[in-house]
Amino acid sequence: MAYARTRHHPPGTSPGTLRPHEVPKGEKVTIRVISYGPDRFEEKELASVDEALAYRDAPGVTWIDVSGLHDMGVLQKLGDAFGLHPLALEDVLNTGQRPKLDDYETQQFMVMKEIHFSGSMIEMEQVSLFLGKSYVITFQETPGDCFEPVRERLRKGKGRLRRLGADYLVYALIDSLVDQAFPILEKLGEGIEDLEEEVLHSPTRETLHAIHDVKRCLLGLRRAAWPQREVIHALQSEGSRFVQKETRVYLRDLYDHTIQIMDMIETYRDITAGMLDVYLSSLSNRMNEIMKVLTIIATIFIPLTFIVGIYGMNFNTQVSPWNMPELNWRYGYPTVLGVMLMIAVGMLIYFRRRKWL
Amino acid sequence: MAYARTRHHPPGTSPGTLRPHEVPKGEKVTIRVISYGPDRFEEKELASVDEALAYRDAPGVTWIDVSGLHDMGVLQKLGDAFGLHPLALEDVLNTGQRPKLDDYETQQFMVMKEIHFSGSMIEMEQVSLFLGKSYVITFQETPGDCFEPVRERLRKGKGRLRRLGADYLVYALIDSLVDQAFPILEKLGEGIEDLEEEVLHSPTRETLHAIHDVKRCLLGLRRAAWPQREVIHALQSEGSRFVQKETRVYLRDLYDHTIQIMDMIETYRDITAGMLDVYLSSLSNRMNEIMKVLTIIATIFIPLTFIVGIYGMNFNTQVSPWNMPELNWRYGYPTVLGVMLMIAVGMLIYFRRRKWL
Amino acid sequence: MAYARTRHHPPGTSPGTLRPHEVPKGEKVTIRVISYGPDRFEEKELASVDEALAYRDAPGVTWIDVSGLHDMGVLQKLGDAFGLHPLALEDVLNTGQRPKLDDYETQQFMVMKEIHFSGSMIEMEQVSLFLGKSYVITFQETPGDCFEPVRERLRKGKGRLRRLGADYLVYALIDSLVDQAFPILEKLGEGIEDLEEEVLHSPTRETLHAIHDVKRCLLGLRRAAWPQREVIHALQSEGSRFVQKETRVYLRDLYDHTIQIMDMIETYRDITAGMLDVYLSSLSNRMNEIMKVLTIIATIFIPLTFIVGIYGMNFNTQVSPWNMPELNWRYGYPTVLGVMLMIAVGMLIYFRRRKWL
Amino acid sequence: MAYARTRHHPPGTSPGTLRPHEVPKGEKVTIRVISYGPDRFEEKELASVDEALAYRDAPGVTWIDVSGLHDMGVLQKLGDAFGLHPLALEDVLNTGQRPKLDDYETQQFMVMKEIHFSGSMIEMEQVSLFLGKSYVITFQETPGDCFEPVRERLRKGKGRLRRLGADYLVYALIDSLVDQAFPILEKLGEGIEDLEEEVLHSPTRETLHAIHDVKRCLLGLRRAAWPQREVIHALQSEGSRFVQKETRVYLRDLYDHTIQIMDMIETYRDITAGMLDVYLSSLSNRMNEIMKVLTIIATIFIPLTFIVGIYGMNFNTQVSPWNMPELNWRYGYPTVLGVMLMIAVGMLIYFRRRKWL
Amino acid sequence: MAYARTRHHPPGTSPGTLRPHEVPKGEKVTIRVISYGPDRFEEKELASVDEALAYRDAPGVTWIDVSGLHDMGVLQKLGDAFGLHPLALEDVLNTGQRPKLDDYETQQFMVMKEIHFSGSMIEMEQVSLFLGKSYVITFQETPGDCFEPVRERLRKGKGRLRRLGADYLVYALIDSLVDQAFPILEKLGEGIEDLEEEVLHSPTRETLHAIHDVKRCLLGLRRAAWPQREVIHALQSEGSRFVQKETRVYLRDLYDHTIQIMDMIETYRDITAGMLDVYLSSLSNRMNEIMKVLTIIATIFIPLTFIVGIYGMNFNTQVSPWNMPELNWRYGYPTVLGVMLMIAVGMLIYFRRRKWL
Repeated sequence: MAYARTRHHPPGTSPGTLRPHEVPKGEKVTIRVISYGPDRFEEKELASVDEALAYRDAPGVTWIDVSGLHDMGVLQKLGDAFGLHPLALEDVLNTGQRPKLDDYETQQFMVMKEIHFSGSMIEMEQVSLFLGKSYVITFQETPGDCFEPVRERLRKGKGRLRRLGADYLVYALIDSLVDQAFPILEKLGEGIEDLEEEVLHSPTRETLHAIHDVKRCLLGLRRAAWPQREVIHALQSEGSRFVQKETRVYLRDLYDHTIQIMDMIETYRDITAGMLDVYLSSLSNRMNEIMKVLTIIATIFIPLTFIVGIYGMNFNTQVSPWNMPELNWRYGYPTVLGVMLMIAVGMLIYFRRRKWL
Repeated sequence: MAYARTRHHPPGTSPGTLRPHEVPKGEKVTIRVISYGPDRFEEKELASVDEALAYRDAPGVTWIDVSGLHDMGVLQKLGDAFGLHPLALEDVLNTGQRPKLDDYETQQFMVMKEIHFSGSMIEMEQVSLFLGKSYVITFQETPGDCFEPVRERLRKGKGRLRRLGADYLVYALIDSLVDQAFPILEKLGEGIEDLEEEVLHSPTRETLHAIHDVKRCLLGLRRAAWPQREVIHALQSEGSRFVQKETRVYLRDLYDHTIQIMDMIETYRDITAGMLDVYLSSLSNRMNEIMKVLTIIATIFIPLTFIVGIYGMNFNTQVSPWNMPELNWRYGYPTVLGVMLMIAVGMLIYFRRRKWL
Repeated sequence: MAYARTRHHPPGTSPGTLRPHEVPKGEKVTIRVISYGPDRFEEKELASVDEALAYRDAPGVTWIDVSGLHDMGVLQKLGDAFGLHPLALEDVLNTGQRPKLDDYETQQFMVMKEIHFSGSMIEMEQVSLFLGKSYVITFQETPGDCFEPVRERLRKGKGRLRRLGADYLVYALIDSLVDQAFPILEKLGEGIEDLEEEVLHSPTRETLHAIHDVKRCLLGLRRAAWPQREVIHALQSEGSRFVQKETRVYLRDLYDHTIQIMDMIETYRDITAGMLDVYLSSLSNRMNEIMKVLTIIATIFIPLTFIVGIYGMNFNTQVSPWNMPELNWRYGYPTVLGVMLMIAVGMLIYFRRRKWL
Repeated sequence: MAYARTRHHPPGTSPGTLRPHEVPKGEKVTIRVISYGPDRFEEKELASVDEALAYRDAPGVTWIDVSGLHDMGVLQKLGDAFGLHPLALEDVLNTGQRPKLDDYETQQFMVMKEIHFSGSMIEMEQVSLFLGKSYVITFQETPGDCFEPVRERLRKGKGRLRRLGADYLVYALIDSLVDQAFPILEKLGEGIEDLEEEVLHSPTRETLHAIHDVKRCLLGLRRAAWPQREVIHALQSEGSRFVQKETRVYLRDLYDHTIQIMDMIETYRDITAGMLDVYLSSLSNRMNEIMKVLTIIATIFIPLTFIVGIYGMNFNTQVSPWNMPELNWRYGYPTVLGVMLMIAVGMLIYFRRRKWL
Repeated sequence: MAYARTRHHPPGTSPGTLRPHEVPKGEKVTIRVISYGPDRFEEKELASVDEALAYRDAPGVTWIDVSGLHDMGVLQKLGDAFGLHPLALEDVLNTGQRPKLDDYETQQFMVMKEIHFSGSMIEMEQVSLFLGKSYVITFQETPGDCFEPVRERLRKGKGRLRRLGADYLVYALIDSLVDQAFPILEKLGEGIEDLEEEVLHSPTRETLHAIHDVKRCLLGLRRAAWPQREVIHALQSEGSRFVQKETRVYLRDLYDHTIQIMDMIETYRDITAGMLDVYLSSLSNRMNEIMKVLTIIATIFIPLTFIVGIYGMNFNTQVSPWNMPELNWRYGYPTVLGVMLMIAVGMLIYFRRRKWL
């Protein structure tokens, strides 16, 4: 995994010069338009970008959703038709952007992240949103998205979504993006609980790797969630020209969600940091235990081995009465065995007193 | 324990769509109304939510207390009658909320936490409060609560509580919730003192687990206490339309309590963090001690064993005068024993000088 | 030591309901009144609290100093006579308060801490001060205090203290409380210096305990000093109605003192944190040294012991010329000794190259 | 590498007294002037600084680029002609400056850093920029720079760069400087990924050095990037007299880039900090593994060696039936071998139960 | 070294009561007056403080520099003549002050620190400055100072220093004090570089002490530099009555210097903190290496020693064909040697596979 990938305008070109996004070949750019009002709803997948231009001045709210970023023509034409700023388009293409909110004269431009679990690592897709007076334009890197429930609600045609304007649509879209974090965090949380059990009771080398992976996941999530929170805060509190008062209370609620997400991430980070300490302590504990066994065995047997070594010496007992007379004693052997037993028992008592046993 | 549980509006529904809270079956929703003024007091457990509606425009102050969140009808009806915002009702149901204060047009909505000790872990129950002009509505997850003393004071009918308005009632309720933290913190503090003794004098593997548990408790407490403090601060200082000047001085006092709670939590966290260091140092210390014993025993006996090994060799002394003539010396054996004694004593002196003994 | 002790209004009673402070029996509440002006001075120990009430409207400045908090009547009567707020009186009794400044209509109420060294731990006594237009009321837990120098200056009757009003008296009292921290910090500082020497040159298990104690002391001091600083800042800068401009410059100077105290505490904390690292490094260093000795001894003698073991085998040399012919060589024994010497010397050279010696 | 090098005005001289920058001899100071407007473009390398003065009042925008800082005359003359403040000129010469923006009456003065990779360490060159009403003056330490693409765009004569004023030129120059950080960060990121693999699977002593080097790189980058960000923020938001509204939106975009750079640096720092923990854990893990092998081998063989030592003792079996009768048993030897086998197997089972195998 | 030394007004005296500074006896208080204007310059060492009073209303700027703080009369008289506030004079005497800026009615009072290297530790001398409308009064603890270059520039009589007022003189003096930190930091930086080499390639116990000393130095520097920075910021930005606009730009430059100093200190602290980690890792690495050697030697030889021990047993081969028949085999000895060789080689292969060799 590359930690960050940021493309910026190529040297020798002025900022705002567009270059196509690199994608696996054969993938198509999909443009889908939804146009609606309280009483009408129209959904259409467009064959070419030129059709989209007709919706510029359509009544009600228009949502143009572009999946795939490799066709420069599409971006350029949409940009020209809706007056999207070249710098914003550049940011659409450079998918390593941090979530942010930029105010342009005729739109507000937002960069958000869609979070997926891919295996045990977290993947992020950049979603760019333009909020104009009566239209929303979204750009996604790949076709699949989490906006289907929003579309469904639009189709069903009831509720606030159809009644309120483009700002509420943007709220609904961002809400989908943000709420995706909850199941992922819950899954992470379960993983952390398991890890915690493991680290306390049977830590292995794999536990360390797993802790490390979780930490990396959380680092990535935090990197996305923090600025996302700021985006929503700016949208809600500053009162851009495009967000109406009625929508603002929903954005405040969404803002609470992002605070909750940050809160969970920070809690998980604290827990994970603590786990590493516990892991290291467990290692030390184990080491201590192993050392204790070694020490007890060695400390008991090394002196005993010395003693039996003594009586394995070959001093000539016949030459002198000073040379190992014990060897010829009647109870020499049992005496030595007895002495060794006493030493061993003495040591065990000593160890027990020191609480090593 | 799951670290966080957050439900949000289900996909495909607009925000504010209510779904019942999951509860163990068979539990009943209890609705209790207390209506009072300086000279009157009425307390009643309601059979159905419809009765509650009569109290909407009752004179004096009305407190509607709902225990159990699984009956959607109750919430919906209360919400309609008192004009509670759907987003707030959603937060009532999603009991993983962070404590917060949201300002709606006709009420202030607060989420607070009731803290219990359950075994050695801390449990939290969400308590939601709506403060309107002349009424307070509270929602609790389960029947038991810490509001009984407040009810008692209301029944006795003397003091500020009966004289002042709904804002003072909310103060009294939050005060009960906040002050519950003190005995829990004191119990925790005693546990920490015991742990500290243990970690300094006889740390075991269980000590580590206990430190870990305390850290987790404190993490949880802090996560609840921090935003609670902000809620009370907002209630007191910002001067919502619903809080009168006379009540504000009590809220400021309550705010001081929350600061004190935070202060205690931080102090405990500092102490607990320090304990882990001490624990690790103790482990290292122990390891050192064990290693010292092993080293002393091994260092003394390994050379001695080598020497006795020498005189256990079977070189043929008869073949050559160069082959182990010591074996046939008159004082060979005592000499070797003496040499070994000198080596052992020398080593002991060396160890003593190095302060290993 | 209990880390924190906070009493709050008992359940079932409204806030501001007073309950007597628990004290060792037999201790008496002392009430001392000093009433002074530029030209007059009167000092009196009162037999009963009723006498104090006469001073309420006395000309000049009146200082009522109450030692001992267990007589509820005294507090209640003083409270009634001087219009002290019940919440403030509650805080006077609950001696686990954090230092704080509360503004009431007719007084400013301050909670401060008097710091003592008791053995090697720090003890704190709560001192509560009420500053009114022409009076100061102080409450202390126990009789002894650090206000004697202030009284002395009042008695001598010269200088600003007699000339200026109640606000300057409060400044003088708080100044006494704050300046008490300096000798304690200096004593702590000396202890830290000694510890530092010890940790670098001869760390023992006791060193760890001592570091731990110092850390705890500093934690306690910081917990008291930080809010104290805020109290003085509020008193000086906000300009309460009770503090005059001339006094404010003295409070600013006092504020500088508290910053200096915080600064010293933080420096000590940094140093102490560093000491733990050094302690752990020293342990590791020691371990390394011990291991080195063990390794050198074992690495040299284990192979040698193996060799002597070989020639201690009992293969029958008479059965076959292949069986240990060395035993019958003329220079077998010296050769083996020589080989072993060479091995030992070789190893020592190897160790020296690796810088283990 | 020296961590910081700061020259300040020499003692005995007033601030703003210039002294030549120390450079390797033989290098020449190059002065290059580009003067342009929407319809005209002129580029010239000047033989002497006096020629530059003619451009002071030239129409359109003039960019004077000075490479090499050792000719005092050049600086002094330019300073006099364009009214550059002596303190700013001093900062141009003292190449250890932190990036900063200083507002002078007739210019804005900026210090920026050009970052290069030199081997595995990061090198920085100071670039100083003066932005006046219609001119930009840049000073570089060495000839090579990253401004060539900007010059190329000027030469090609199309786009905003020629149309807009000196402020946009400064934006373009700073943009070049900032965007240079991205490839360097990507290279660093790849190095960190490799390191991470290494630290998890085969950590060596070199890994530690590499982690250390990366940390140092990041420290250096952060030290440069942080104030650079502030400079751009000040340029964009404060609205100096020299920056026009149209340029400001580009500066805001550039500001986003610097935030992204900081974000990447912080992420890398977090990852690198985590790696050290993993490294230490890996070391501990290894140690444990080694200890386990040693302990198993020693624990099995030390008792066995003791047993064989027993039967190597030379007690005289003929003197007494108590002396090692086993030696004369028919199945003595196989019995002993069997007993030892049983002990060894028993120990292996014990180890397996303790999960040491 | 005492970490902090703070004298405060003695108990029983009112604040502002002066007591002489303790100094080694025999040292003299020196009073030097420099009085100058654009066209005049007068320098004189005064015999008594009374002469100084004549300069109070002298035209131009007067700088009274007092070295030595033990003569109370000098301070008192100067204080009376120039209206210096007693609290400020108290701070002049209590040389443990933190750098600070206090605004009095007729002067600004500053406390600054002069930093020296004394051996390998840093020493600080307190310099107190009073800035009045047309005079500067400085107090130093000891005679030597870093103001000589300023005096030299005054004597030479050219440049801004003579032209501008007392505020610029204060700037010049503080500039001398601040710039003294740079060579000290550079020397520290070189020491850190050396330490870094050492810690990576040959860490010893002394390295640890050296790291510890550097950390202490940096702690001390930071403690002085941080508030010094605030003093200069306050002087520059707040616009006291005594600082003119022309001087302010120089103070801003000086402020940049202090930021740079803080920046260097923080960088050094980061590096030093990293070094401790590297040091500990190096220790662990070493330990691992030592353990490896021990384990390899022990693991190879312990089983071999066991084998040779077997054939050193004295079972009677004549009693039974089951008793150690190997001893009488023709190739018994070579076979055993061969088996042992195979075991040793096998182990070495195993170790190589585990990468222990």
